[in-house]
Amino acid sequence: MRVLVTGGSGFLGSYVVSALREAGHSVVIFDIQSPNSGDYIRGDLTSLDDLLIGTQGIDAVCHLAAVGDVYLAFDKPYLAAELNVVGTANLMEACLRNQVAKVVYASTWEVYGEPCYQPIDEAHPCNPDHPYNITKLAGERIALSYDRLKGVPTLCLRLGTAYGTRMRPNSVFCIFIARALRGEPLVIKGSGEQSRQFTHARDISYAFRCALESAVSGEVFNIVSPESISIRQLAEMVAERIPTSITYEEAREGDIASALVSSEKARLALGWEPAVGFSEGLSELVEWHVGVHT
Amino acid sequence: MRVLVTGGSGFLGSYVVSALREAGHSVVIFDIQSPNSGDYIRGDLTSLDDLLIGTQGIDAVCHLAAVGDVYLAFDKPYLAAELNVVGTANLMEACLRNQVAKVVYASTWEVYGEPCYQPIDEAHPCNPDHPYNITKLAGERIALSYDRLKGVPTLCLRLGTAYGTRMRPNSVFCIFIARALRGEPLVIKGSGEQSRQFTHARDISYAFRCALESAVSGEVFNIVSPESISIRQLAEMVAERIPTSITYEEAREGDIASALVSSEKARLALGWEPAVGFSEGLSELVEWHVGVHT
Repeated sequence: MRVLVTGGSGFLGSYVVSALREAGHSVVIFDIQSPNSGDYIRGDLTSLDDLLIGTQGIDAVCHLAAVGDVYLAFDKPYLAAELNVVGTANLMEACLRNQVAKVVYASTWEVYGEPCYQPIDEAHPCNPDHPYNITKLAGERIALSYDRLKGVPTLCLRLGTAYGTRMRPNSVFCIFIARALRGEPLVIKGSGEQSRQFTHARDISYAFRCALESAVSGEVFNIVSPESISIRQLAEMVAERIPTSITYEEAREGDIASALVSSEKARLALGWEPAVGFSEGLSELVEWHVGVHT
Repeated sequence: MRVLVTGGSGFLGSYVVSALREAGHSVVIFDIQSPNSGDYIRGDLTSLDDLLIGTQGIDAVCHLAAVGDVYLAFDKPYLAAELNVVGTANLMEACLRNQVAKVVYASTWEVYGEPCYQPIDEAHPCNPDHPYNITKLAGERIALSYDRLKGVPTLCLRLGTAYGTRMRPNSVFCIFIARALRGEPLVIKGSGEQSRQFTHARDISYAFRCALESAVSGEVFNIVSPESISIRQLAEMVAERIPTSITYEEAREGDIASALVSSEKARLALGWEPAVGFSEGLSELVEWHVGVHT
């Protein structure tokens, strides 16, 4: 298949590009930044014209371009709305007009908001309350409305908190590792008891491949690793690998609470299962940082 | 209070402007179209700069500007996303920077989607699946996130299907009345059994006044008249007033299903109750049409 990956120059997008190329697909990257290698179209999600050009002759789209930084979305909700909602609507319109046969949308487990029950499956109500997850859910729903009302086959993947080499330097992983490498204490905001099902970027990229090659459409899937790791555990695991101390500060406003999410539906319908254990993935990330910083 | 009414030149907005002026408030209209009378700022929701100018020296905002036409939102989801989501985020950002003390957001009962239980109260999950209600809900959530995370006091009113003189000519009311006046049959799409709690624009404008003058914020309220009227009943009531026949055609795709909505919370917390009975409101609308067309 000839696949367009929006945001293909970014952290998660570049993993998806690699996974699809390894699986034999022909991949074109659509991004505002140029990638390290391969076919590339410079384009902006806010331009329907750019997307109409980008989707010409394309069989399928993996849509990862977005304001993915929750702190940027917090500071500029209007920017998150522009890229995550209008950008997705522009993309879906371009896919409709160019008869793209499949769209896989990168959503997030954070769309659920406060858990009503756990583990959270795909039938759980969505009550997002942060500009990041509000706009990601709206983009998801716009994408699915193009599936249901206009016949553009679409799948949405609600991804766990992604990690892996090349991730954003303002992630808790990179901040902890960088401080440990400088011999500074790791600072935990709040109790450190809030947990995340960190999901490795390679496992996520495999989910995009499964979604692309599946005959299913019009559905939503959780793509979340089963291991639940608290911020305190993360700090301890970093400090095991690069010895340093751990201190505590006041909680940051607008941070997302913990919730346990099940990916059973993706296992059954898409055959997706994560392969990277957290300890292994963290060691790889630490080694990469050591390589970059020393 | 000095109140900015976005969309104040439009159908619902002009009712809100009148109700607030009658209650002694000083009203400024923010719209892309000029109003019939009064203080007016020509501005565009997609421009944060326009909204920063528009909200200077303003105590409160009633936000009604939007793509309110569901058929336009269906045809151009990207336009609905731009105005209903980005536009609302721009407005909230302007209100934050100019320290506006209250925002009342015009949402819709259609955000609920398929009913899980009835009557639908404000705790009911929201599962919108049409570009109109998807973007209205996202705007609502962005607005409430500015209340919760950034301290801009905000109320959201989930309005029933509004009707009244000066309403859009492509509404089912105007189409039925215009056909009846031309002696043509009234055409019902589908069985005609789908029902709506049509809510008069004067009752809705009173809800904006109640919301504005209330000390409550960070809350959502259904503002929906209790009478449930089927499309078949509406056709019969129009044909009683302007004698003509009724015929049936195939259902239109993407139309919203029926649901019973309760406004008990607004009655208790805001003291809002509708005053215009449906038969009375319809007669007024028919008389207005006869006056305009004859």
